[in-house]
Amino acid sequence: MMSDDLRGVVERMVREALEGQLRSHGDRSVPINISARHMHVRQDHLETLFGAGATLTKLRDLMQTGEFAANETVAVVGRNRRVFEQVRILGPVRKATQVELSYTDGRYLGMDLPARVSGNIAGTHPVILIGPKGVVQLQEGVIRALRHIHIGDDDASRIGVRNGQMVSVRTAGPLGVTFDQVLIRASRTALREMHIDTDEANAAGLGAGAAGEILL
Amino acid sequence: MMSDDLRGVVERMVREALEGQLRSHGDRSVPINISARHMHVRQDHLETLFGAGATLTKLRDLMQTGEFAANETVAVVGRNRRVFEQVRILGPVRKATQVELSYTDGRYLGMDLPARVSGNIAGTHPVILIGPKGVVQLQEGVIRALRHIHIGDDDASRIGVRNGQMVSVRTAGPLGVTFDQVLIRASRTALREMHIDTDEANAAGLGAGAAGEILL
Repeated sequence: MMSDDLRGVVERMVREALEGQLRSHGDRSVPINISARHMHVRQDHLETLFGAGATLTKLRDLMQTGEFAANETVAVVGRNRRVFEQVRILGPVRKATQVELSYTDGRYLGMDLPARVSGNIAGTHPVILIGPKGVVQLQEGVIRALRHIHIGDDDASRIGVRNGQMVSVRTAGPLGVTFDQVLIRASRTALREMHIDTDEANAAGLGAGAAGEILL
Repeated sequence: MMSDDLRGVVERMVREALEGQLRSHGDRSVPINISARHMHVRQDHLETLFGAGATLTKLRDLMQTGEFAANETVAVVGRNRRVFEQVRILGPVRKATQVELSYTDGRYLGMDLPARVSGNIAGTHPVILIGPKGVVQLQEGVIRALRHIHIGDDDASRIGVRNGQMVSVRTAGPLGVTFDQVLIRASRTALREMHIDTDEANAAGLGAGAAGEILL
């Protein structure tokens, strides 16, 4: 067993080593990860859906520290009664339940989805969530996530971007696209990573292992 | 009744007037039309699907001269037995039957769709078509259409592009994207118009009445 102090030191060293790989020579490349439809859940909704005392169990870690894909999935039902049967929950639990779909997904469920920053769900579409133990009628909370780049504060300073800034990101390949209007979301501990949805990935012909270059 | 000669003159004048609106001042703007999933059909398949002697009937004209959306729709079934119940046929009939889906649509039907120029269907996915009178088992013919710009030869010369060239097209707005790898398809009578699929439209936040600017 490591002491908590030692664990903290090791974690920091590993993170800095990983960031170092990205930032060498003022490199503005950014790994691009594709968000399939997914959701975040607050604790009381989780318990309604999966039973009293339910907790999320980890399927696999995501890139950002502490975030993970859970084993738990939920059926998401639109007002048109169409269904996505298995929408994966990403953990940990949050303060608000939020469903993130592509615009195409939204059209399938009869929704004209707004592009929103995660957490900004006021006035968005209602939806019904069905778990193995119960149903949640969400009054609002379905968004299309505004494409964005997570980045550590130090890393952001180094390449000359700041939290809240919109940048462009160029992708290569036979269906290359330059995404304009990409939101920088800088925070102390974030690792450099761009998130796009499946519509955006498909428009650019991107799959696993994609990367782009931040243009300033 | 107009004589055929007079009709030809009037048609040419109208076309040139419309093109003139676009091309004033060396303007490189291009209207962008979004292709939802659709298909083209050859005559014998049309008759298998809709009965002996069947012809396509016009729902509405499309922008390119002579092309139209037909009233006729077909169910398109993947090997995974998922279905798009109503895929519209675009007329007139062609030499080969071809289904054009977005990449997202393809994933739904269990296909990893290649991006192809219309007509280039060799080795593409098989699919089952179901009409009111019969079934066609297509051995190949499902593509994701490579994004492209139709343009008249004279118009192409005027703005300095040539058939087969790849250009970039910038779109504006809160989800603006610059599409690289846009194929120029110049022909004598084409009108300037860009075609993208729904994934591409959604990635760029585009709907009806969209436009872009060709970057050289």
